[in-house]
Amino acid sequence: MSGADLTLVPIGRVESPLSETADAPKQGFEGGPDAWLVFEPRIVDALEGLEPGARVIVLTWLDRADRSVLRVHPRDDRSNPMRGVLTTRSADRPNPIGLHEVQVLKVDGNRVKVSDLEALDGTPVLDVKPVLD
Amino acid sequence: MSGADLTLVPIGRVESPLSETADAPKQGFEGGPDAWLVFEPRIVDALEGLEPGARVIVLTWLDRADRSVLRVHPRDDRSNPMRGVLTTRSADRPNPIGLHEVQVLKVDGNRVKVSDLEALDGTPVLDVKPVLD
Repeated sequence: MSGADLTLVPIGRVESPLSETADAPKQGFEGGPDAWLVFEPRIVDALEGLEPGARVIVLTWLDRADRSVLRVHPRDDRSNPMRGVLTTRSADRPNPIGLHEVQVLKVDGNRVKVSDLEALDGTPVLDVKPVLD
Repeated sequence: MSGADLTLVPIGRVESPLSETADAPKQGFEGGPDAWLVFEPRIVDALEGLEPGARVIVLTWLDRADRSVLRVHPRDDRSNPMRGVLTTRSADRPNPIGLHEVQVLKVDGNRVKVSDLEALDGTPVLDVKPVLD
């Protein structure tokens, strides 16, 4: 498959105690529970060199999102004036890709434990990238 | 469209003097030229509140990427041992989403000028998110 095809293929799923939308923090970096990223066995070579302690950005697909929303009250608070979704971290946006900066705690074959992941159980994982300082 | 559909819809395109793959820096944060993000008129409401000076993360679709690649020599240097693509910023990866941290320089309707964007001319834009400190 080349990059000319804009269809995402999940490379794994989140295993997390967060199971309801209301449990999820409204923004990244407010903390979340430890969670497992369970990767498809076919892509395990892509994890080679991933080590505990690494800081990484996990990209997820926010599959409960409403992709038709262009403006929101930030943080779901109606006293906040409406803003364009591209100026917020709302999950509702045209391409609902989540960014989560986490630390790798453990690597066990195709299973990777990470800290502080504010993503719901079952969320598709799209990509992992190293944090560049 | 709901988040259950994993097809990306570009919300705009990059206009940049970078036109060849060889011109593009190998990683983010090594600098790049100023560039324009030209958004689809239908999503201009999603930009409401975006102001010059804002630091944002632009998400792009690296449409020249090879999505079948799982391991690479980092930075295209064959003296670097092969590693899994998920431990690198290689464009070649299963879901070639680019992350670019830039500063907004100007907003003119559906056109947004940003600093230091290491993305090729014509690259599809998927999303823009505020940087959270």
